[in-house]
Amino acid sequence: MMFADLTEFHQWLAERRAAHEYRVVPTPLKRLDGWAVDPGTGDLHHRSGRFFSVHGLDVTGSRREVGQWQQPIISQPEHGILGILVKEVGGVLYCLLQAKMEPGNVNTLQLSPTVQATRSNYTRVHRGRPVPYLELFTSLGRGRPLADALQSEQGSWFLAKRNRNMVVRIDEDVPVLDNFCWLSLDQIGRLLAMDDLVNMDTRTVLSHLLPRGEQVSGRPLHTVPEVLNWLTHHKTTDRTVRRPVPLAKTDGWRVSDDDVRHEYDRHFRIIGVDVRAEDREVRGWSQPMLAPCGEGIAAFVVRTVGGVPHVLVQARAEAGTPDTVEIAPTVQCNPGNLAHLPRTRHPRYLDAVLEAPPERVLFDVVHSEEGGRFYHARNRYRAVEVGDEFPLDVADGFRWVTRDQLALLNQFGGLLNVETRNLLTCLGFIK
Amino acid sequence: MMFADLTEFHQWLAERRAAHEYRVVPTPLKRLDGWAVDPGTGDLHHRSGRFFSVHGLDVTGSRREVGQWQQPIISQPEHGILGILVKEVGGVLYCLLQAKMEPGNVNTLQLSPTVQATRSNYTRVHRGRPVPYLELFTSLGRGRPLADALQSEQGSWFLAKRNRNMVVRIDEDVPVLDNFCWLSLDQIGRLLAMDDLVNMDTRTVLSHLLPRGEQVSGRPLHTVPEVLNWLTHHKTTDRTVRRPVPLAKTDGWRVSDDDVRHEYDRHFRIIGVDVRAEDREVRGWSQPMLAPCGEGIAAFVVRTVGGVPHVLVQARAEAGTPDTVEIAPTVQCNPGNLAHLPRTRHPRYLDAVLEAPPERVLFDVVHSEEGGRFYHARNRYRAVEVGDEFPLDVADGFRWVTRDQLALLNQFGGLLNVETRNLLTCLGFIK
Repeated sequence: MMFADLTEFHQWLAERRAAHEYRVVPTPLKRLDGWAVDPGTGDLHHRSGRFFSVHGLDVTGSRREVGQWQQPIISQPEHGILGILVKEVGGVLYCLLQAKMEPGNVNTLQLSPTVQATRSNYTRVHRGRPVPYLELFTSLGRGRPLADALQSEQGSWFLAKRNRNMVVRIDEDVPVLDNFCWLSLDQIGRLLAMDDLVNMDTRTVLSHLLPRGEQVSGRPLHTVPEVLNWLTHHKTTDRTVRRPVPLAKTDGWRVSDDDVRHEYDRHFRIIGVDVRAEDREVRGWSQPMLAPCGEGIAAFVVRTVGGVPHVLVQARAEAGTPDTVEIAPTVQCNPGNLAHLPRTRHPRYLDAVLEAPPERVLFDVVHSEEGGRFYHARNRYRAVEVGDEFPLDVADGFRWVTRDQLALLNQFGGLLNVETRNLLTCLGFIK
Repeated sequence: MMFADLTEFHQWLAERRAAHEYRVVPTPLKRLDGWAVDPGTGDLHHRSGRFFSVHGLDVTGSRREVGQWQQPIISQPEHGILGILVKEVGGVLYCLLQAKMEPGNVNTLQLSPTVQATRSNYTRVHRGRPVPYLELFTSLGRGRPLADALQSEQGSWFLAKRNRNMVVRIDEDVPVLDNFCWLSLDQIGRLLAMDDLVNMDTRTVLSHLLPRGEQVSGRPLHTVPEVLNWLTHHKTTDRTVRRPVPLAKTDGWRVSDDDVRHEYDRHFRIIGVDVRAEDREVRGWSQPMLAPCGEGIAAFVVRTVGGVPHVLVQARAEAGTPDTVEIAPTVQCNPGNLAHLPRTRHPRYLDAVLEAPPERVLFDVVHSEEGGRFYHARNRYRAVEVGDEFPLDVADGFRWVTRDQLALLNQFGGLLNVETRNLLTCLGFIK
C-alpha cells in the first residue's frame, strides 16, 4: 500500500478507523480485571506479576526548580522493540507504518512503527496473536540495520523505562498487511506537521533516520568532545536520589478506589480503563493508565551562530531518568502545573518559547504521547528561532549544540531524552 | 620534567621510589581501623558510611560458561575522576603522568594519570591534602577537553563502578610538581610494553586518545549500525539478574576474622591492609582490598579481512556490569579458576590465544589493575594475529570489529569494558 498523494492516505486512514470498533471505558482502579492493589503499599500490579506496576517514588537532591517531591510512577523494567522497516523505491526511502489503535489515543488510530511491541507482547505473555514483521527485527538474516539504540522514555512518568529503537532496511518485497502502509520520508514530514497523527514511537524511531543537516560553512560552537564533557560533568555531579515509596503513602497524592490524583489536581492522575478492540492481538483487556492534567510543552530555541544553526539544550535529571541526567530540550514542562508559582520559579526560557512572534516559529504541533500507557497525553512540540539579541552565554546546565551533533549522540542510545528525540524528528522532517 | 630518553626516566622513577617510605601491612579484617563488620550481614563498611563497602552478590540467568553463582563484590557508587593533561610541544603530544604509590601495587610506584581521585579524595572526605591539578579537570576555563566519558571498571570485582575518564589539552605552561613528569605518546608506548609500570587508570584514559588506524583500502566487515545492532541485541536479551546477599551468607565463600575467601581458594580473597605512606594526601589509613588468586588474562584475537585488521570481541555480562552487557575482549578469564573444569567448559578461543606461535603475538605484557582497591592484581594483556584458517563465522555473542570502530564507540562511555579499553591502548600505542 502506497499513496500517490496524502488525500489518498487520509481516505485510507478514515476507512481503517471506520472498519473497526473500539471502546475504552474508564473503570475504577479497584475493579480492573486482572489487576490488584497491594494491601500493604497500595501499589498497583498485574496479578501475573508481569506487564508493569505503579508505585510511589521519592525524589531528593534535584537541581530542578523544585528540589524534592514524591509522585506515582510506572515501573516497567523490560525492553520492548520499536522498529521501522525501510525500503528504497526509485531512489526514495519509504517507511512501513501501521494505523494502530491504542487505548490512550485521543483519536483511536495513529501511525505506529512497523513493530511496536512490549516484551510481554512479543513473548506473548498475554497469549495474543503473533506480532507481524517481528522476525525482521529480532533476526537479521533478511534486513540490514541502519540504527539500533536502547532509549529512555518519559522520565517524569516512567521509572528507568527503555525501549529498543530500530531501523531495518530491506531490499526484498514483503507483504503489506491490513492496517500497514508505505510512506515516504517526505510524506511523513508533512504528516508530522499535523496534530495527533504520527505516534510517539514512530517519532522517536525516526530520530535515528535524520537526514544530515545542509552543508554549512561555519563551525559548531563546541566540538563533540566538548559536548560530551558538558554532559559527563552533569552526569557525574548530579545528586538526584530516587527511593521507592508505597503508592498509598506518596506525599501530596490521594489514592481512592477510583484513581490516584494529586491533592491540587496537578501533574496527572492514574486511572483505570477497560478496552474492547477488534483487531489487536488480544480482543479485550483492562489496565491502569497515566492521564496527564493539561497539555505539556517541549521546545527548542534555535539560533544561528557563525553561519551554523544551533539548538539550546539542557542536562536534565527527571524522576525516572535511567542514568542520572540526559540531554533535554530548551524547555520541557506542563504550564498548568506552574500557574500557582511566581514567574521567577518558571522554567528558564519558557517566555522566549511562548512569546516568539509567529514568523520566528519553525514548527508548532501537538503530538500525542504513547497511547499504551498514557491516556490523552498531549504535548505541544515547538521550535522558535531567535536572533543575535538572544545571549550566547546561557544558564548553568544549558548548552548550544548543532542538530548533527545531537543526531550523532543519538545513535549510541541513552544520551537524549524522548522529548529531545521527538523535537529532533520534527526539526529534521517537517518542511 | 621531560626526559631525553627512557634511561633518564627510569633513573627518575628509581629516585622517586627511593625518596619515600611506604609500608603495606596485611591486617585482619576485624581489626581494620575505621572499618566495621555489620553484625547482621557480615558486610564490610567504613564507619563514616563513605568510601566503599563489600557485600555479597547473587548472580543468576547468566549466559556465561557458569550460569549462576554468588560472590563478594565491592560497592562504590560514587564517580571518581581519572584525567590526563596533555600538551603539544614541538608538534609532539605529551601527557602529564605521576609516579604514584598505591597500596595494592606489586612495585609500590606506577605511572598514574595527572589526576586519579575518588570522589572521597577530591571532596576531601578524609581531610587529606588537595588533589593537584584537579581544577584543570573540574572547571574548564584553561584547558580544552579532548575526551570525557563515564566508564565502567572491573565488572567481576566492582558492582556498577564507574569513573570519569578525561583528557584535557592545555596550551599554557603549568608547574610540574614533585612526582609528576611529561611523557610523549611514543615514550608511553614503549613503557606500555613493560610489566607493571603504566597503571590501569592511565591505560583506560589513554584508550580515549588513540591515534586513528592507518589508512586502509578495504571496508570493515560490519558497519557501525551493524555493530550497535549486535550490541543492543545482547543488551536487551541478556537475562542476568543480580541480587545483593549478606556477605556472611555468600554461597561458597568463607568469612573469618582475617579474610573472606572462596571455599576452594579460587577467584580472590578480601583482605585487610594497614598503609603508611609519606606523600599521599593522608599519611596512613586502613582498608579492605580484593586480592585475586593468580594471574588473569585478557586477549584479542586479530585477523585481517579484506585488507582491514579486525578484532574479535564479545558481548559479555559480568557480575557487576553497570548496564547489562558491555563489549569484552575475545578472551577474559583467570586460568587458575578453570583447572578443575573440563576443557569443554573453558572460555571460547582460550587455546587460540595461549597457543599462538611467538611470531603471531602482537604484544604480551603483564599489567597491574588499580592498586587502590586490588592487591597485587595482575593480568596478562595479549593480542595474537590469526590467519585465514581462523573461521570468520564466530560463536554466538562474538563479533569482528575494527580498532577504529571500537575507538569511536569508546568516546560515548559505557560500551567497552575496562579490559577491552586496556587492550585497545596496548594495540594502539605499543610499537
